[in-house]
Amino acid sequence: VSALIVAAGRGRRLGGRQPKQFVRVGGRTLVERCLRIFEAAPAVDDIWLVLPAGRLRAAYPLRRRYRKLRGAVEGGKERGDSVRRGLQRLGSGGIVLVHDAARPMVPAEVIERVARAARRHGAAVPALPVGDTLKRAGRGGRVARTLARARVWAAQTPQGFRVEVLRRAYAGGRGRATDDAALVERLGRRVALVEGSPLAFKITRPGDLRLARLLARAGV
Amino acid sequence: VSALIVAAGRGRRLGGRQPKQFVRVGGRTLVERCLRIFEAAPAVDDIWLVLPAGRLRAAYPLRRRYRKLRGAVEGGKERGDSVRRGLQRLGSGGIVLVHDAARPMVPAEVIERVARAARRHGAAVPALPVGDTLKRAGRGGRVARTLARARVWAAQTPQGFRVEVLRRAYAGGRGRATDDAALVERLGRRVALVEGSPLAFKITRPGDLRLARLLARAGV
Repeated sequence: VSALIVAAGRGRRLGGRQPKQFVRVGGRTLVERCLRIFEAAPAVDDIWLVLPAGRLRAAYPLRRRYRKLRGAVEGGKERGDSVRRGLQRLGSGGIVLVHDAARPMVPAEVIERVARAARRHGAAVPALPVGDTLKRAGRGGRVARTLARARVWAAQTPQGFRVEVLRRAYAGGRGRATDDAALVERLGRRVALVEGSPLAFKITRPGDLRLARLLARAGV
Repeated sequence: VSALIVAAGRGRRLGGRQPKQFVRVGGRTLVERCLRIFEAAPAVDDIWLVLPAGRLRAAYPLRRRYRKLRGAVEGGKERGDSVRRGLQRLGSGGIVLVHDAARPMVPAEVIERVARAARRHGAAVPALPVGDTLKRAGRGGRVARTLARARVWAAQTPQGFRVEVLRRAYAGGRGRATDDAALVERLGRRVALVEGSPLAFKITRPGDLRLARLLARAGV
């Protein structure tokens, strides 16, 4: 089982000078937090890191600290390019867990569940049933309409796949997707849903960073 | 501005013997946490509590501690019935903020934003753009398909309304809705979207309760 930690974005919506994967929460960058979690996960054998172009040096000190970290790869322009490049480094026959560095508090049990389901079904995503009412936003900051939320789940990461399955999905090159599982779904393959966690939330906006810092203060 | 805290559910999905609004987080029930927040919110003048049938006594000790708490009302069978009963207690001409007790960590600034926008536009909901990929679940725990998430926002509470607007929405009695704003939308009225907060998350499942307890440990 290889973990592919995707940290190649240039996301600065958080407002800092650093891309968000290098922002610190409780003294550690989001990338380091992810490394610690996957390093400690019994299901994970090795880790590959996808970094922004020109920032591969960031991996040197990390390789000394994280035994499972095999190496780093330069990411591409879009998230999909980055995953594709990371995939090239992996051997065949295993499982890959693709994880967004923007989810630095994913609990170990989610990783175990995804790895197990990916091995069994070929593809698995952690997710939670949506409890909030969903609205489509219209013009001028108003609600256009309320959407049906029955059986709607919010997908998180790591998403797990047999390496061959994800390679085939990316080989298709069938346009963009907001997550890896969507490409596998387009192949007509089964993607299993496993239970995610509220702690696997994604850091996108300043409020998410505030939440992460509160959790770090509580020892997460 | 009146806050109507809806705590009439019988939700036991959390697994305890108590309905979830009476579960304790960091030593206080979810109901008490909501009362503290609304008591401290400058925009709020008075508070009404909707409790489960037969549990009005729970309000007696609270009325001594929360000066703005005007009284408690017995809720109905569905959430909508509970809101309707609470609405009957309010005078005319004001703003009502309807809040679910299952969101016991809503930040004060969200309350202020909703109150301001409700006064200006007649109806306002706090919400956040959905960052996770949304999946429709099919049979047997698998993904049926990936949904378009562009311009999809997840609505939270408190939702704010001019009292007359929400009364008219409920008078229609046009079936069930998962939130109050949806009834106002059916009237064809404008509902403003204001910025919510990750801290306004809803406690539904055990993982949410775990998140709330971690945040309580961090002083929230």
